[in-house]
Amino acid sequence: MKKILNDPSDLVPEMMAGMVASYPQYVRLIPDTTAVVRNDKAFTEKHEPRVGVVSGGGSGHEPLHAGFVGLGMLTAAVAGQVFTSPTPDQIYEAIKAANQGRGVLLIIKNYSGDVMNFDMAKDLAGIDDIPVESIVVDDDVAVEDSLYTQGRRGVAGTVFVEKIVGAAAEAGADLKTLVQLGKDVIAQTKTIGVALHAATVPEVGHPGFELGPDEMEYGVGIHNEPGYKREKMVPSAQLAKELLGKIGDQFPGGLADKSFAVLVNGFGATPLGEQFIFANDVLHQLGEAQATAAFTKVGNYVTSLDMTGLSLTLLQLTDKHWLPYLNAPAATIGWGDTRNER
Amino acid sequence: MKKILNDPSDLVPEMMAGMVASYPQYVRLIPDTTAVVRNDKAFTEKHEPRVGVVSGGGSGHEPLHAGFVGLGMLTAAVAGQVFTSPTPDQIYEAIKAANQGRGVLLIIKNYSGDVMNFDMAKDLAGIDDIPVESIVVDDDVAVEDSLYTQGRRGVAGTVFVEKIVGAAAEAGADLKTLVQLGKDVIAQTKTIGVALHAATVPEVGHPGFELGPDEMEYGVGIHNEPGYKREKMVPSAQLAKELLGKIGDQFPGGLADKSFAVLVNGFGATPLGEQFIFANDVLHQLGEAQATAAFTKVGNYVTSLDMTGLSLTLLQLTDKHWLPYLNAPAATIGWGDTRNER
Repeated sequence: MKKILNDPSDLVPEMMAGMVASYPQYVRLIPDTTAVVRNDKAFTEKHEPRVGVVSGGGSGHEPLHAGFVGLGMLTAAVAGQVFTSPTPDQIYEAIKAANQGRGVLLIIKNYSGDVMNFDMAKDLAGIDDIPVESIVVDDDVAVEDSLYTQGRRGVAGTVFVEKIVGAAAEAGADLKTLVQLGKDVIAQTKTIGVALHAATVPEVGHPGFELGPDEMEYGVGIHNEPGYKREKMVPSAQLAKELLGKIGDQFPGGLADKSFAVLVNGFGATPLGEQFIFANDVLHQLGEAQATAAFTKVGNYVTSLDMTGLSLTLLQLTDKHWLPYLNAPAATIGWGDTRNER
Repeated sequence: MKKILNDPSDLVPEMMAGMVASYPQYVRLIPDTTAVVRNDKAFTEKHEPRVGVVSGGGSGHEPLHAGFVGLGMLTAAVAGQVFTSPTPDQIYEAIKAANQGRGVLLIIKNYSGDVMNFDMAKDLAGIDDIPVESIVVDDDVAVEDSLYTQGRRGVAGTVFVEKIVGAAAEAGADLKTLVQLGKDVIAQTKTIGVALHAATVPEVGHPGFELGPDEMEYGVGIHNEPGYKREKMVPSAQLAKELLGKIGDQFPGGLADKSFAVLVNGFGATPLGEQFIFANDVLHQLGEAQATAAFTKVGNYVTSLDMTGLSLTLLQLTDKHWLPYLNAPAATIGWGDTRNER
């Protein structure tokens, strides 16, 4: 295992310290935690209160979640140990830091540990009379149940949920509205991933599974969870066809005549050039299927340490407000430019 | 070799097609080339003419250069084959597309092939009476001469040059002013990189060099060029000390009492989390050295295909205009948020 690290047990606090030291214009650490909260002037100076939006989970998926804290996205984010849920006390601190008097929405990826710990944090916040609601993202359509969860896993589509819900919160929506919005978006968000090489957890020291020199794992999770098949590598266009087919099966009537937001997401060790080649095949085949890509993002958003591979997410834009929310201004480390209107 | 590709010989056109299909709000292809030009409304609709800023080079370094085309950075960018200079005719087309009547500045990374081909394109443009000037970036302080060039290589610091010169062009500076600004910035920009694993050129099919399971190459180039030593892996803090020491030697009087823009740049297969751990060490040690980091970027900006490793760039902010130029609005695929003032 070759990684740029000091003591692996200090990985998360050092990473978070590096993030806030590099980008103090966006985030600050919440004292005695590995959680961050917005540090931009629009938040720290007197402003109209908004519903706080908090997410978090195990580390190793950077820029998720701390990289999406900022104007128009998350208010705070909590980082657990690598591939491990954050503790309830840290989530509770993030809830308090994010609360502006209008309550807090928790965006949870569907893993048993996360759901349990975020629920416990919600109970803690209840004692303080902070209204807290939660939504659970389960966009991974590769498998029905998995290693660390019942039901579908929450993966890269989480970024679209955070962007849309965050933009609505910024626009002033109340907690109840945000819960419904989040659930509606989640219901239309479908993701599937492939790995060419598994991730190596630093404290383990070797890849989570071994693939042959010409093999690919289809439907892999972002914690080295197994997928639905392991086969020989295929060209990008054929891979796009497979993933679009699997995702298309999830939308009644298939892909035709639908409008989508598309996320091609690198898993950490996949060059951006390869991601663009795959995006080219996806967008071309969507067009052939009479579907529209109204919004596209390509890059590393929800990674799995040093995993090689990528995921494809389609969010069907069934509500006319979602595209403007995707295009709404955001100022975070990970989302990128704020003026990405077409 | 496992890569997400179709025919390797189609890599560059497919990658560029994917980029413009994914992000038409920023870039469009220049017909019959693998070059792109700005496609945002601020450029395509009637506007005050600016000096065009054009860069380019071999592919495999994405998001460089096409990912930095947009408002406040490059006007156009030309992509050659992997690790191969673009041809003069394509550069010439980019010059014509970028020219708004006030001339064009070429930003060239110091490689013999690039310098030669950009010079030939400049001659072609001279026939059309387009005023063209060029600057050559040679920020890599690892070695004096290298495999593909005389003098120092142009590497990640190129992004700072493109950002500052692009912001000045956007502000209306003339060609002569931009040439001097670019030269002044280049003189203060120093970079050094390390590799944990070499890049694999798709048409070659194996890594450019082999490192032992615990070895690191210091001073590596972005085309697998050798560096200045090969040694056992060290912890991140020790690596930061080595690179800061080498870079500090380049500034008269060392690092103390100087203000820098800092770029921690991933080479393509290095997780963002590791980059933040390294950034944490760099920023901490800069503080200990009584130096200031007035601006910081951490992420994949100038990559080398699937190379594992990173580079550190320090730009000494010797002119009070440079920090505002770094913080000036930009709207590109690769630079990120536009409101990154501290």
